Amino acid sequence: TRSNSANKSTSGKYLKELLPATNCLHPLHRKFTRLPHLAGTEQNLRYAEQIGKEWLEFGLDTVEMVPYDVLLSYPNKSQPNYISIVDQFGSEVFNTSLAEPVPEGYEDVSNIVPPYSAFSAKGQPEGDLVYVNYGRTEDFSQLEKDMGINVTGKIVIIRYGKIFRGNKVTNAMLAGAKGVILFSDPADYCAVGVQSYPHGWNLPGGGAQRGNIFNMNGAGDPLTPGYPAKEYTYRSNLENVVGLPNIPVHPIGYNDLAISCQKDFLSLFVAVSFSPKVRMNIHTNNQVTRIHNVIGRIRGALEPDRYVILGGHRDAWVFGGIDPMSGAAVVHEIVRTFGLLLRKGWRPRRTIIFASWDAEEFGLQGSTEWAEDNAKMLQERAVGYVNADSAIEGMYTLRVDCTPSLHTLVYDLTKQIASPEEGEEGVSLYESWHKRDNWTNDRDAPRISKLGSGSDFEAYFIRLGIAAARARYTKNKETERYSSYPVYHSVYETFELVDKFYDPTFKRLRAVAQVRAGLIFQLAESQLLPLDVNQYADSLGKYAQSIVQLAQRHPQEMTKYEVSFDALFSAVGNFSVAARDFHERLQTLNREDPMPVRVMNDQLMYLERAFIDPMGLPGRPFYRHVIFAPSSHNKYAGESFPGIYDALFDIKNSADTAKAWEEVKHQISIAAFTVHAAGMTLTPPA
Amino acid sequence: TRSNSANKSTSGKYLKELLPATNCLHPLHRKFTRLPHLAGTEQNLRYAEQIGKEWLEFGLDTVEMVPYDVLLSYPNKSQPNYISIVDQFGSEVFNTSLAEPVPEGYEDVSNIVPPYSAFSAKGQPEGDLVYVNYGRTEDFSQLEKDMGINVTGKIVIIRYGKIFRGNKVTNAMLAGAKGVILFSDPADYCAVGVQSYPHGWNLPGGGAQRGNIFNMNGAGDPLTPGYPAKEYTYRSNLENVVGLPNIPVHPIGYNDLAISCQKDFLSLFVAVSFSPKVRMNIHTNNQVTRIHNVIGRIRGALEPDRYVILGGHRDAWVFGGIDPMSGAAVVHEIVRTFGLLLRKGWRPRRTIIFASWDAEEFGLQGSTEWAEDNAKMLQERAVGYVNADSAIEGMYTLRVDCTPSLHTLVYDLTKQIASPEEGEEGVSLYESWHKRDNWTNDRDAPRISKLGSGSDFEAYFIRLGIAAARARYTKNKETERYSSYPVYHSVYETFELVDKFYDPTFKRLRAVAQVRAGLIFQLAESQLLPLDVNQYADSLGKYAQSIVQLAQRHPQEMTKYEVSFDALFSAVGNFSVAARDFHERLQTLNREDPMPVRVMNDQLMYLERAFIDPMGLPGRPFYRHVIFAPSSHNKYAGESFPGIYDALFDIKNSADTAKAWEEVKHQISIAAFTVHAAGMTLTPPA
Repeated sequence: TRSNSANKSTSGKYLKELLPATNCLHPLHRKFTRLPHLAGTEQNLRYAEQIGKEWLEFGLDTVEMVPYDVLLSYPNKSQPNYISIVDQFGSEVFNTSLAEPVPEGYEDVSNIVPPYSAFSAKGQPEGDLVYVNYGRTEDFSQLEKDMGINVTGKIVIIRYGKIFRGNKVTNAMLAGAKGVILFSDPADYCAVGVQSYPHGWNLPGGGAQRGNIFNMNGAGDPLTPGYPAKEYTYRSNLENVVGLPNIPVHPIGYNDLAISCQKDFLSLFVAVSFSPKVRMNIHTNNQVTRIHNVIGRIRGALEPDRYVILGGHRDAWVFGGIDPMSGAAVVHEIVRTFGLLLRKGWRPRRTIIFASWDAEEFGLQGSTEWAEDNAKMLQERAVGYVNADSAIEGMYTLRVDCTPSLHTLVYDLTKQIASPEEGEEGVSLYESWHKRDNWTNDRDAPRISKLGSGSDFEAYFIRLGIAAARARYTKNKETERYSSYPVYHSVYETFELVDKFYDPTFKRLRAVAQVRAGLIFQLAESQLLPLDVNQYADSLGKYAQSIVQLAQRHPQEMTKYEVSFDALFSAVGNFSVAARDFHERLQTLNREDPMPVRVMNDQLMYLERAFIDPMGLPGRPFYRHVIFAPSSHNKYAGESFPGIYDALFDIKNSADTAKAWEEVKHQISIAAFTVHAAGMTLTPPA
Repeated sequence: TRSNSANKSTSGKYLKELLPATNCLHPLHRKFTRLPHLAGTEQNLRYAEQIGKEWLEFGLDTVEMVPYDVLLSYPNKSQPNYISIVDQFGSEVFNTSLAEPVPEGYEDVSNIVPPYSAFSAKGQPEGDLVYVNYGRTEDFSQLEKDMGINVTGKIVIIRYGKIFRGNKVTNAMLAGAKGVILFSDPADYCAVGVQSYPHGWNLPGGGAQRGNIFNMNGAGDPLTPGYPAKEYTYRSNLENVVGLPNIPVHPIGYNDLAISCQKDFLSLFVAVSFSPKVRMNIHTNNQVTRIHNVIGRIRGALEPDRYVILGGHRDAWVFGGIDPMSGAAVVHEIVRTFGLLLRKGWRPRRTIIFASWDAEEFGLQGSTEWAEDNAKMLQERAVGYVNADSAIEGMYTLRVDCTPSLHTLVYDLTKQIASPEEGEEGVSLYESWHKRDNWTNDRDAPRISKLGSGSDFEAYFIRLGIAAARARYTKNKETERYSSYPVYHSVYETFELVDKFYDPTFKRLRAVAQVRAGLIFQLAESQLLPLDVNQYADSLGKYAQSIVQLAQRHPQEMTKYEVSFDALFSAVGNFSVAARDFHERLQTLNREDPMPVRVMNDQLMYLERAFIDPMGLPGRPFYRHVIFAPSSHNKYAGESFPGIYDALFDIKNSADTAKAWEEVKHQISIAAFTVHAAGMTLTPPA
């Protein structure tokens, strides 16, 4: 051990050594993208073992393999899934492709899982086809109300994009559809002026998007909600699992719809008489399967009971060229470089935990089960969680989503990192990013977004209330209107995709590695936790403004039902005062005395936890963060004050308006109380 | 501030000054028992103000009055409640008394609330009367199954005792009764050879037991479950409140049943044709009412963010001679004596919080709302909670209910306190207690029981997982078979009751004050928290044994449904090893270094928290302690592994045996996981 105050001068030095050391991403990325490694398969276990072995060699104090037995879903190998057009005699006159054309260089690879929708029900429904655009609530409602088309008993065809595919399926089920076909529309999956893979990075017509379609709302393994899926754990009967889709779902590419790239597709709702009849043939099986997380640790020197976590998934639908291996390579490289520091005698103030999660693609099972397994310790000890999914999804600039208290650290850090862009020698990542994506008119700084869901930070942030961040390289969202990145979840996510198109110098991945590594380093090493509670106060003020604006779209009802946001604004005001006073007290803190430092650090650490409501959000017991959660209508979109947001969203669809507004008032009260209580945790503790 | 290691030698000295100083209980008890001070009344607010003022004078750093607006229940002053016997023409030929005869010396006192059942529904049901003994599940089942008597549409008459009165009412509602009469049977409320008050401490025939009959299961204010009942808090519609009784309920004394004391009463089930017809006339109102907690603090010198809480209620049904003022006087006296220490320059290592709770009698509202209001801070910072309800309920010996980790402290402390019994000069409280109530054949030590519920520790222990204890003087439960103490919740709970009968020298109350004060002192002052995790391990082993024995009453079903306790025993084994290793590491801890001391103290503090399951027990979201909670069938009885216990209890009443055993298995799995996870928190943190 070492003295409490010693680390201030030396930690800056070590950070300066750490950041440039991240220079081996190219071979690491190559190494882990050669073979398909779907969750629950032999190859994904082999990669886990290899990673664990190498982490130990890099110098971590401990590495363990942590298995869970969770419900996964695989196509039936002897009965492939496909969709047919059937004629009036019931004969299949056209069948969709059974697999994607394998990219060059991978022809001999086995175990490429064909495109499918994980957790689809089995079945062979047959019927008329109805096109429902993106399958959003408003799409179904437009279809029903404006066009008088009822989808009950129909098969719906929905294009990917805008919202999480699981929400599309839920909406289809609620509307009474008996099957769902998901497809990639070139309008959403081809960038303008770009060739299809392998000549460019657009989605070829034979490619399709795999993905799970289950709205787990944070439950992790659906058979063991709230508890880790260990060997002895009691498992619910499959029939009792809430939210498991009960209709067949299947994804196809645009070739199977005979649409060529870069051409306008079906306009809204024209496909009703697309074909005489459609039959889906789906034989996908749910099965309890063993998965493996790899957990490595560097023991903290002074505060071993404070945890800083870097976690990202390892499982991929196929090769995972972008998702997740561009991120997993970054984790591996960060472990290697932290190992170099350890060899030089460095040891962080706090404990660092590195995680290679399994089964993210099936619904965040690996990370969620581990969070459930370690909930007590994480709740008491975790300082921050940095997520490491795909490190790149575009070639434009940095993208950061994080909790408000990390804004300042992200800015400080990116000023110490070099821009990876050509022609920007001597320019910081901060400047490069700022130039490309300024926040808003009223805030001159690079844009930082709210965390939504759809990756492994979910259980740590939304369920447990641990300050969290994610960072990646992204596209220009002003000009590049396609969804996600075009080859997302297809077989064309290869090493070459990154090496030839996205990041030929691997400098972008390196910049992302430096951001992630720097966050972990500073959270683990700073004597005072680098969390800015004033930023949280500012953000709460903006969120309160924006939710009241949403409500004010109904001025008459606001008056009629006496809906007031006063308590929320008053709570935000109290919080802001407490935050400002807290930072003032920090200025006069005696940093030589370890106990007062620990006391204030604990207040910083537990601030995010104070936004957790053990009651959960309405109907979603595992989404417990009152400030941030995805809306119930789109898992990907992070909303602020999600309880109020959802209650307002439901106003227009509710049969009982008075009751719907009562729910809005209830949610405002909960938000006001939570913000007030969180502010109280920042006041002097006695 | 002072140095970390300084306090070891001086703290013993201060404890030796503290304990003998508790010598003003007699005047304090007299002062606060002169007037009725029901929750929500003017007089109870006046006492609160007086207490707050005096606490400040005693020397506390801060005192605040904390109001909440909660649902309470009062008789209608203009329409008294009573029960009639009606003849065949519907005329009331006999009416029960409207009030108890006022005891001598209190004739001029106003605002004595007559006996009533708080939260009774209003109504005037009329019908046949059926006697259902104590109203337990087994009593109703015997009536129905063995005697073929259906109580649907009947008024049931149930004697007080054995289980919480709210559970009796729930059972009656489930059985279809349309009204409940509760009465005090001399067999349960008169001690042998004792005269009735004022000549002795037995219940007179004109006395009756007030009490709330609402099974809140830890929710506190029923209109704001999970949140503090502040001004701005959203309140549920009364109609939506789960568990509020929907039938009239009323208590009567034995004079109204024409039974004289010390004589055998109705034998079981003979009262069916007791009278032609009975009519209940109940006009009790539920109303949202302001209540007031008084919260005082002594700021901790070294760890201001660690809280030790002494809390007890102030509200009384009438004078509160025993319940709660025998305990509230103790709290007041402890504040006074801690004030004396402060004047001598002492300041505890940790923060001490003193609480005078309101509205305990209506269902723990004051303490629960404050726990909800401060949940985040309590979760992170509370070291222990000592409850201070009635300090005496008998004249025999000490009674302690506490969490296992406090057993050792209780024993150590009672060895430093003198026995209050005559003829035991020079004998310690420990010896006196040990002699009168040895634990069991296999454990030679004074008996300590599990915490149940029915007093203000509930939210702190069962919902939040804060190590908790209560101590009081009690009767000889081997020989004194009456329920509670005879005049419980009657107007006869006066100062004189204590001064003449229970504790004429006030030495028993003083011994209880010393136990409560000593617990607070040691929890607040010891450098290492005085919590013994080995004791927790031992207790878990015993609880596991006893729950498996309960299950083994069904050996064939255990086999048929493959019910195994292996995972639970394995978890208890792991926990025991972790506990032993933890205490071994404590031996070698460098106590001069504040950080490792804090780290291990945090592990000790958070151990109790580790038994909290945010999912709650089945159907009882606010009972979240997996090891300790009351059974669903009797709020007063603390059960270990309550989830398993209730699941086993339900086996015999379940229509679907297979499903009932599935629930047993589910609960075993949860218990095993929780014990395992709690054990993990004791291992080295990195």
